[in-house]
Amino acid sequence: MKTLSLDLGVRSYPIYIGAGLLGDSTLLTRHVKESRIAIVTNTTVAPLYLAKLHAAMASLNPVEVILPDGEQYKTLEVLSRIFDAMLSAHCDRRTTVVALGGGVIGDMAGFAAACYQRGVSYLQVPTTLLAQVDSAVGGKTGVNHPLGKNMIGAFHQPRAVIIDTDTLRTLPDRELSAGMAEVIKYGLIRDPDFFSWLEANLEKLLMLDPEALSFAIHRSCRNKAEVVAADEHESGVRAILNLGHTFGHAIETGLGYGNWLHGEAIAAGMIMAADLSRRLGWLSASDVARLEDLIQRARLPVRAPAQLQTPRLLELMSVDKKVQQGRLRLVLLKRIGEAVVTDDYPRADLEATLASRREGA
Amino acid sequence: MKTLSLDLGVRSYPIYIGAGLLGDSTLLTRHVKESRIAIVTNTTVAPLYLAKLHAAMASLNPVEVILPDGEQYKTLEVLSRIFDAMLSAHCDRRTTVVALGGGVIGDMAGFAAACYQRGVSYLQVPTTLLAQVDSAVGGKTGVNHPLGKNMIGAFHQPRAVIIDTDTLRTLPDRELSAGMAEVIKYGLIRDPDFFSWLEANLEKLLMLDPEALSFAIHRSCRNKAEVVAADEHESGVRAILNLGHTFGHAIETGLGYGNWLHGEAIAAGMIMAADLSRRLGWLSASDVARLEDLIQRARLPVRAPAQLQTPRLLELMSVDKKVQQGRLRLVLLKRIGEAVVTDDYPRADLEATLASRREGA
Repeated sequence: MKTLSLDLGVRSYPIYIGAGLLGDSTLLTRHVKESRIAIVTNTTVAPLYLAKLHAAMASLNPVEVILPDGEQYKTLEVLSRIFDAMLSAHCDRRTTVVALGGGVIGDMAGFAAACYQRGVSYLQVPTTLLAQVDSAVGGKTGVNHPLGKNMIGAFHQPRAVIIDTDTLRTLPDRELSAGMAEVIKYGLIRDPDFFSWLEANLEKLLMLDPEALSFAIHRSCRNKAEVVAADEHESGVRAILNLGHTFGHAIETGLGYGNWLHGEAIAAGMIMAADLSRRLGWLSASDVARLEDLIQRARLPVRAPAQLQTPRLLELMSVDKKVQQGRLRLVLLKRIGEAVVTDDYPRADLEATLASRREGA
Repeated sequence: MKTLSLDLGVRSYPIYIGAGLLGDSTLLTRHVKESRIAIVTNTTVAPLYLAKLHAAMASLNPVEVILPDGEQYKTLEVLSRIFDAMLSAHCDRRTTVVALGGGVIGDMAGFAAACYQRGVSYLQVPTTLLAQVDSAVGGKTGVNHPLGKNMIGAFHQPRAVIIDTDTLRTLPDRELSAGMAEVIKYGLIRDPDFFSWLEANLEKLLMLDPEALSFAIHRSCRNKAEVVAADEHESGVRAILNLGHTFGHAIETGLGYGNWLHGEAIAAGMIMAADLSRRLGWLSASDVARLEDLIQRARLPVRAPAQLQTPRLLELMSVDKKVQQGRLRLVLLKRIGEAVVTDDYPRADLEATLASRREGA
């Protein structure tokens, strides 16, 4: 087992990475200070791992909440089912919520914990690659709104993140690829050596080579933890973690939640960010080609879907949380391994990127 | 104008109390650091005060959100209308929400501010006595759940509380009385001199005598501010502010939200707390009679409604946020002017109180 820490003063917490952790009763219960837990999961993960986790934490009298699976269910309405179940079971303020699942479950369970009786503790037990390397770490929680992704939520840090790498064995290939988008992101924004390592080892990851996976998850979490520790509430540098996300969220919202996976939209979004960075003279054409090649090898889309035309994408991007006083700030790349947040780019270049990086364009 | 401060370190904020403040453009805009506001109000308050507030804050490009009026609309579903309106208007993270109305509006607008894009600033501009002396101060925000009051919410402090006492001129008598329940509460829990003052001056308050009102609102806010400053997140002493609330919430939930006003239920709840305190040997029968007399003079109910029998009340009380490990903690009175939080009371005494302090019992 590897361990690292997200350093946030009194809200610091550990991240554990290893095989078989879902059966480690001592580890799982170590961070529950009080008497009761509520495990939140979904209909896909429950048959695979709920019984195991429940057994490992049985001393904590678990309530189970099983939600439908998919980004389209990441809504206020479905969130309220968590409250229904916890209130019906008379869960009090000392209850700890346990999020067992991917990014949607982690975001919703974390937000439910932030709001239940004005705030209870929670643990992240992520079971998808995307959640393990990104969404389970850093305390961003929330739900979507028909007009925009993650528009309703809270910063609420978990007490611990427990990553059982064995869960990736049951992850569909498409989901594994989606998670790879966020892994690649860390190389792009601040870790050029990791980017090169990924170019050399991507196929090992896709084949679930244990050593390669463990290395990549740990390295990703370390990158994320360092950025979040420097800027918990995204008033500055944390925004670089959103590379590709303004484009990607527009794709997800425009297609309707649940059509493209989040990681797929981010992959196409990162290509768009790279393309715009090239137009600004920062990346070379060969840098963009390197990224495009890696994304393709990860079996991820390199272009936005054909039906999302430029005006629609611009409209969708305009509600992004990084908009300030009407100016849309974007995360772009100075080079592979260095990101910047800027609203200083020609509108024409942005439009050219949107028009050219679309399927069939 | 009177001013006092709620001292919470970096989250400290001022409370302004005076006549005509809704027209004070300088004061109203002083605490909005950014470019945009969203005014949240309801269908009752909007025709009375929205135009005035909008005009005073017109430089901040207000979005207006008008919700239906009543405790029965304090739900996640109605909350989402605030998000709909703000997202449709492209409000960004720098938007300040302005809560114009009573306790329901303040709680919902504050919770919307806590969650919108993971947190924006807000101002409280309370227009009912109850909101002015209680709910607008202290940062508790949230919505109800069919199984319990205020079960979903956040601690989120406003940037300022601006109390225009002129708004009480349009307040229905029933609402004025409801607010008086919380005013009386401060005397009961920690301010015996204020309790005596209320016994001498209650009718002046009911007639909206400006000097008496200003004194009582300031004194109430000062009591609240001192308690909240000592214990922002209710890990200790803040719980005494909930005198009568565990009983009262059970009445509100049991009758269906919107039947009894919150202050009416709290009034009956305070009598029940006093009655149980008498059974424990803390209050004398004449103390209880003094309180009952004052509550009656404030035109508030002194008994729970007949249809809520003891088993049902006990069931409703069991989901209270003050339950810890299955034990229901109650705020009780050692004497008039001193409250305690305790779970150490005979169950039989609680049941005797519930049975005897009901209409027709």
